[in-house]
Amino acid sequence: MSGIPLAEAVPALIELGRRFDTRGWAPATSGNYSARLDDGSFAITVSGTHKGRLKPNGIMRVDAAGQGLTPGRPSAETALHLAIYRLFPDAGAVLHGHSPQAVGLSRAASAGEWVFRGHEMLKAFPGVASHEGEMRLPIVENSQDMAAIEAAVHPALTEPGTAPAYLIRSHGLYAWGKDIDEAERVLEATEWLIAAELAEQNFRGALAR
Amino acid sequence: MSGIPLAEAVPALIELGRRFDTRGWAPATSGNYSARLDDGSFAITVSGTHKGRLKPNGIMRVDAAGQGLTPGRPSAETALHLAIYRLFPDAGAVLHGHSPQAVGLSRAASAGEWVFRGHEMLKAFPGVASHEGEMRLPIVENSQDMAAIEAAVHPALTEPGTAPAYLIRSHGLYAWGKDIDEAERVLEATEWLIAAELAEQNFRGALAR
Amino acid sequence: MSGIPLAEAVPALIELGRRFDTRGWAPATSGNYSARLDDGSFAITVSGTHKGRLKPNGIMRVDAAGQGLTPGRPSAETALHLAIYRLFPDAGAVLHGHSPQAVGLSRAASAGEWVFRGHEMLKAFPGVASHEGEMRLPIVENSQDMAAIEAAVHPALTEPGTAPAYLIRSHGLYAWGKDIDEAERVLEATEWLIAAELAEQNFRGALAR
Amino acid sequence: MSGIPLAEAVPALIELGRRFDTRGWAPATSGNYSARLDDGSFAITVSGTHKGRLKPNGIMRVDAAGQGLTPGRPSAETALHLAIYRLFPDAGAVLHGHSPQAVGLSRAASAGEWVFRGHEMLKAFPGVASHEGEMRLPIVENSQDMAAIEAAVHPALTEPGTAPAYLIRSHGLYAWGKDIDEAERVLEATEWLIAAELAEQNFRGALAR
Repeated sequence: MSGIPLAEAVPALIELGRRFDTRGWAPATSGNYSARLDDGSFAITVSGTHKGRLKPNGIMRVDAAGQGLTPGRPSAETALHLAIYRLFPDAGAVLHGHSPQAVGLSRAASAGEWVFRGHEMLKAFPGVASHEGEMRLPIVENSQDMAAIEAAVHPALTEPGTAPAYLIRSHGLYAWGKDIDEAERVLEATEWLIAAELAEQNFRGALAR
Repeated sequence: MSGIPLAEAVPALIELGRRFDTRGWAPATSGNYSARLDDGSFAITVSGTHKGRLKPNGIMRVDAAGQGLTPGRPSAETALHLAIYRLFPDAGAVLHGHSPQAVGLSRAASAGEWVFRGHEMLKAFPGVASHEGEMRLPIVENSQDMAAIEAAVHPALTEPGTAPAYLIRSHGLYAWGKDIDEAERVLEATEWLIAAELAEQNFRGALAR
Repeated sequence: MSGIPLAEAVPALIELGRRFDTRGWAPATSGNYSARLDDGSFAITVSGTHKGRLKPNGIMRVDAAGQGLTPGRPSAETALHLAIYRLFPDAGAVLHGHSPQAVGLSRAASAGEWVFRGHEMLKAFPGVASHEGEMRLPIVENSQDMAAIEAAVHPALTEPGTAPAYLIRSHGLYAWGKDIDEAERVLEATEWLIAAELAEQNFRGALAR
Repeated sequence: MSGIPLAEAVPALIELGRRFDTRGWAPATSGNYSARLDDGSFAITVSGTHKGRLKPNGIMRVDAAGQGLTPGRPSAETALHLAIYRLFPDAGAVLHGHSPQAVGLSRAASAGEWVFRGHEMLKAFPGVASHEGEMRLPIVENSQDMAAIEAAVHPALTEPGTAPAYLIRSHGLYAWGKDIDEAERVLEATEWLIAAELAEQNFRGALAR
């Protein structure tokens, strides 16, 4: 449950937002990012800013109950971040991005999960040492009630073989890790897996003609 | 109906053009951008320049009738910008971009509108607080007569549930907002929604095989 | 038949290569770019360099017969550039790029041309004032014999309604204009039209399901 | 079997990683790159770093048996790099990247190779002077046992008409060349060919409707 100083979290989250925007995962003011701080509080992006052009005042501190400790209105999804930190005491960062592919997949797939099988990229997830398994990505229905999303996704998250990530249908992707780098790695790998499976399906369609 | 100083509008529109070009929304010399100025006139891009490499002389001032107040030939679509400012007194910026996806959609869909349903991204539009609705994006036929486009699209724009944006078929996307940032947010969100629905359809096709 | 000084052509072509590489149109060492110089000779990229990382010595001078006037081995396709300058005395620059979309289209379409219809983007081509027409993009078979390509494509290039551009099948796209800016505009517009029609077809396929 | 100084290899591989990341070929910590050094040892990326943000300590030296000569844990796929250097004494660099397209193709195609035919881009491969042939890209099954991958792919690599590259199914692409530039050229060309054939198939599907 250790964390990092705010002075380290702020530039790291600003740079991360710039990267996500370049990749097309931070359109409009979407997405929100947080990190566990060394004083037990959390740094989180404020509501309503463009994540590709974050400034230091676009990141504020909240306590474990989501109460603001510095000026600003925290992200409307702060409760989902805090729920992950409660459930996984080793989580040091939670990232939420919006890619067209991930949201497209969540709308096309009606089930409550998507399963990645046999990808070397699975080894990008912490603790995975081989491509020879499968990794479940939970898909939960969207809601404006954060408690409803949390309650719906909670059971799936602690089952073995579940990615440290989940999709909210028609909304976007959450991912986390022990620190900002690991959380970014999980999100990048998940987005990549979705893109690779879309390319695979396009080639399959072509080869079947 | 307040506006911003020209000295603020110029660098903001230059930087916006650079970003749109990076995203592939400003090919050749396409697109045009405007902002309401604090003296009641408007800043608008001149005709025939590449929007990814705008210089200060690529932006001129026009009055509410479209007459040039500074040297240069204003965009051929100046009348469409001014029509939006007349119709929506709170609009502070109007942006027009060309993405392959938006134009591809406008040619594939024969109806007079495209409806986005159930996306969290709908909340990027001003005044939308939930994903649980729908947002209509009017599609109007292209014309070289700006008055004809304006007359055709005008009725749809003020109906409830209509995005602050419309598509001209085989042409491109218009979007607006209270300021340049909000207009960019609306345009980014609309482009993202189109890209996400294209990805959704690709996955649906694959899953149906 | 005026041209520009070499000192102007070199940085312009270096910057153009950087942009084309960013857009994915200059993979490996593919592509070649030329400009008409003010002394009647031509600047052209040398063979075998990466166009995204051109240095001044990656651009040499050749005469109208393709003979080198400065050290270096000119592009193997120099003859195709010179043929355009002969055929169109007003051409000031010829650009050749390789995009996956353009080459994919040239392999999927068996005819000797592709016709763009009804796009506002047609106005990016010099002399086109309305979207209400069509523009033919000739497609010629590939050959290692430059004279064979030139002979095959020559008749189509001067017909009315033909773009200042052509596709070599399984190879890439040639485009030209009165100067480097106009040639780039033609190439960008042509690539954009191909991308828009691919998006259109993807949406049509989805809507037909 | 000449090589380059370490002081030359390190900045070249750092810059290469930055480029690959920009192109989307280096998600999470995937990919690994190596170069033959002038003292007979090899520079190779260490395990577990993001290749888009390599620092000098992200590259270490190993001997021909894969033993570390400087601090760090070499890439888990070091043995595959060394096998290429043994098999091809002229190879000066080996690059391994992960693109969604290449991996998608490897999963959609069940055969042990993919054959590129009639592309001008084939000339990007060393020794190819015409588009009028074909180039086989071996596809080998993935394994966590590097010796198994090497044994499976070895016979195909020395057959005439085989690219200096191979795909590991569900994993990624290996490519090599006499130096870093040539290896990058081979990898770029192979990725481009896959992207062009995907675009071709998408257009074919559309034209068949």
